[in-house]
Amino acid sequence: MEFSSKLLEKAVNEMSQLPGIGKRTALRLVLHLLKQPKEQTTFLSQALTNMREEVQFCESCHNISDAAICDICSNAKRDRQIICVVEDIRDVMAIENTGQFRGIYHVLGGKISPIDGVGPSQLNINSLVDKVKLGEVKEIIFALSSTMEGDTTNFYIFRQIQDFDVVTTTIARGISVGDELEYADEVTLGRSILQRVPFEKSFKNN
Amino acid sequence: MEFSSKLLEKAVNEMSQLPGIGKRTALRLVLHLLKQPKEQTTFLSQALTNMREEVQFCESCHNISDAAICDICSNAKRDRQIICVVEDIRDVMAIENTGQFRGIYHVLGGKISPIDGVGPSQLNINSLVDKVKLGEVKEIIFALSSTMEGDTTNFYIFRQIQDFDVVTTTIARGISVGDELEYADEVTLGRSILQRVPFEKSFKNN
Repeated sequence: MEFSSKLLEKAVNEMSQLPGIGKRTALRLVLHLLKQPKEQTTFLSQALTNMREEVQFCESCHNISDAAICDICSNAKRDRQIICVVEDIRDVMAIENTGQFRGIYHVLGGKISPIDGVGPSQLNINSLVDKVKLGEVKEIIFALSSTMEGDTTNFYIFRQIQDFDVVTTTIARGISVGDELEYADEVTLGRSILQRVPFEKSFKNN
Repeated sequence: MEFSSKLLEKAVNEMSQLPGIGKRTALRLVLHLLKQPKEQTTFLSQALTNMREEVQFCESCHNISDAAICDICSNAKRDRQIICVVEDIRDVMAIENTGQFRGIYHVLGGKISPIDGVGPSQLNINSLVDKVKLGEVKEIIFALSSTMEGDTTNFYIFRQIQDFDVVTTTIARGISVGDELEYADEVTLGRSILQRVPFEKSFKNN
């Protein structure tokens, strides 16, 4: 791609560093900004810079936060004895959206994945184990995706906390609400039969 | 979407103003920046701001430029008597990439499209007509996309310059090089038969 402007070229190059944004898409986005009032570009740049410079990670759960302790961890109404272990802050947002969980979270920041060079030491695992060792936790809920890496991470943590007085659970796997049975994959369908629940419990909270 | 950080929320909101970037994609991009060194965000923000503040449009052809007159217009080797009319600077880049055109360009900045509220006065049409009136132009090549709006724009310009001593042409429409005939749409195939070229000319410049 040959550019008629070095300024344009630099903007496109930086924009195309973002994942999933190729040079053509970057050019389209940058040309869009050129057609908009200057303020839009200023606001975007400032929002990104401010966020990158000032955002913090909660010292307790490692969720993204504007303060040293996030809103969820500092909320007196949340049950500190139940910790939901998730991979990413997007998972926190997804679970919060359901309005069904009143405990707190622990954000690992990824999954153990030797292929990608991610070992346990790069994840926020030790701080979770420390919480359990302090004896203040009643239940740990694993809410990682059920992939090879997710299962590995679950087991790695489980082995470090199994000797302590803590209940470990995982979120239920099964057929999505509204899904047709015939299109479900067999592993999910198999599990949903093995882990069937009493009928009178099945419409609770729905 | 509920965010645990106002800074994050603002960054995602600004990012999702870009065309084709929804809230989820914006969140993915912003979280990616958070995992990268701070410099990447700084470079991106600066590149966008610098571009928006400092980029210029060539006074002659309206192409994006770092100077008052762009590199193509100020290049003594280009033929100023042949002007290729395009919609967008991306079209200039595409034609430049072919290496087949030695004239100069005129970037309209869009097409006449009443539905989108774009009339002739919002496009760089007058400056093109002025160039023709000065009598310095030998040929105008229309290289707009062959849509209703493109054709309308071509005709609008054509009617204003037809009384002057200038040749008007359009780029050839036909079957793409390498395409199978059976998959071509019939309008294109029909035109490519009506506007057939002498065989000995067909492999020139290829």
